[in-house]
Amino acid sequence: MKIGVFDSGVGGITVLKELQKRFPAADFIYLGDTAHVPYGTKSPAQIKRLSLRCARILKSKTIDLLVVACNTASSWALPVLETLLKPIPVVGMVKPGIEAALAAFSRPSLKDSPHSAILVLATRATVMSRAYAEDLHALLSPIPVLQQACPLLVAMIEEGWIDHPILRLTIREYVQPYVDQYPSGVAVLGCTHYPWIHREIEKAMPGWVVVDSSWAVGEMLARESFMRDVTASAKISDVPGSTEWIFTDEDAVPTFAKRWIDGRGDQAS
Amino acid sequence: MKIGVFDSGVGGITVLKELQKRFPAADFIYLGDTAHVPYGTKSPAQIKRLSLRCARILKSKTIDLLVVACNTASSWALPVLETLLKPIPVVGMVKPGIEAALAAFSRPSLKDSPHSAILVLATRATVMSRAYAEDLHALLSPIPVLQQACPLLVAMIEEGWIDHPILRLTIREYVQPYVDQYPSGVAVLGCTHYPWIHREIEKAMPGWVVVDSSWAVGEMLARESFMRDVTASAKISDVPGSTEWIFTDEDAVPTFAKRWIDGRGDQAS
Repeated sequence: MKIGVFDSGVGGITVLKELQKRFPAADFIYLGDTAHVPYGTKSPAQIKRLSLRCARILKSKTIDLLVVACNTASSWALPVLETLLKPIPVVGMVKPGIEAALAAFSRPSLKDSPHSAILVLATRATVMSRAYAEDLHALLSPIPVLQQACPLLVAMIEEGWIDHPILRLTIREYVQPYVDQYPSGVAVLGCTHYPWIHREIEKAMPGWVVVDSSWAVGEMLARESFMRDVTASAKISDVPGSTEWIFTDEDAVPTFAKRWIDGRGDQAS
Repeated sequence: MKIGVFDSGVGGITVLKELQKRFPAADFIYLGDTAHVPYGTKSPAQIKRLSLRCARILKSKTIDLLVVACNTASSWALPVLETLLKPIPVVGMVKPGIEAALAAFSRPSLKDSPHSAILVLATRATVMSRAYAEDLHALLSPIPVLQQACPLLVAMIEEGWIDHPILRLTIREYVQPYVDQYPSGVAVLGCTHYPWIHREIEKAMPGWVVVDSSWAVGEMLARESFMRDVTASAKISDVPGSTEWIFTDEDAVPTFAKRWIDGRGDQAS
């Protein structure tokens, strides 16, 4: 089984890592659209165009499943990608992200507190789509569901500022008003870049549970019938699957991600 | 005379403003490639591809002159743009930027100080090209010519953080080592986005002269023979020229720039 994983840049690598752990026998092909990162500041029309372009490349590589490891693309382009790839299944990040948020929120300390909230941290485009907010609101009302666009975080992560004092200040700038207002809650990382700085976000939000959808997408996939073969074959084979890398702009791959790619991938093309 | 002005985003508006002041009778057409901003983190091959795409759009609008109001594109794509547009003249930002730096450095207080330097602040791609550094070094040796890539500044400016404490910290992060080492010098803003934050950079560099090439490109153009007609006609006519706006992604135009566009342009298309 060959799984295509696509993101605007290196954010989707956080999802790839989880999937490799869970489905070690599967072959992966990762496509980072580094020629067009970031997606989160672009318009829906442009996000759809770029996502289709990437999906066409992966389709030509005869993948059996597409994981849209980019929340911005998942929020705006999922239906159009499904149409393009039919009958190949397409899995996005929003549904698993919502599942992760629900699971975290079911803790008694949160559920029963009158001062808890859900906060979706995402790109501007994902926030605009209200993809997370609407479903979470429908599922959890009357718990307040809030959204905060954090557009500079992707730029800083792609720049390699993943452990930088200015990154920490920028995170605080984005989350402090919510932390001040609610002593506890669940923050959903609605962007696959953010798990690179999960710990930093956690540190800025004492009392809050911070969840990301990388783990949840693996959970969700494991339940899908089309994944049974690869799950079963992993049990009988110790041969690890391969990983192929495609970046639409090779020279724009951040150094910190390159180190990871060289360490794990079979082929850094 | 119709002058095409092209930039990756809204940075080139700082150049457009200068040209409108100097050549009020000329018609302008501004193209901001907001669908692909930022250029400065991309590879030379990608920068050339994107620049050619924009130049083709402007060529189809029958311009008489192209101003590449983007240092990243000027550093890497000027020859290929000249080939595409021939015989339409193409003017980039690097030469006027170097002229501005030389003019500033000719002040006796700087020229005669043994502790002065030239610092080029630019995107990563412009720094990599050494377009400024090599010529400045050839012209000014043995004065030290230094370069600092400031990749997050374009992201912050496009985000509208032009008057934000985190912007000020980020500027300091980039320039402080040079200010500590040299009590005086000339800092060249080698990116047309940076004039939006000229004052903030100046405040972070006490003792230094900060110059940008927006003014210098007008100076340089005024000396060109093909500009004589428009300069002459401005003297006899009070009819101001028109300004047309094209953005490859309308929805990605920052609010602070929109206010300026609506205020000055004849047509915000």
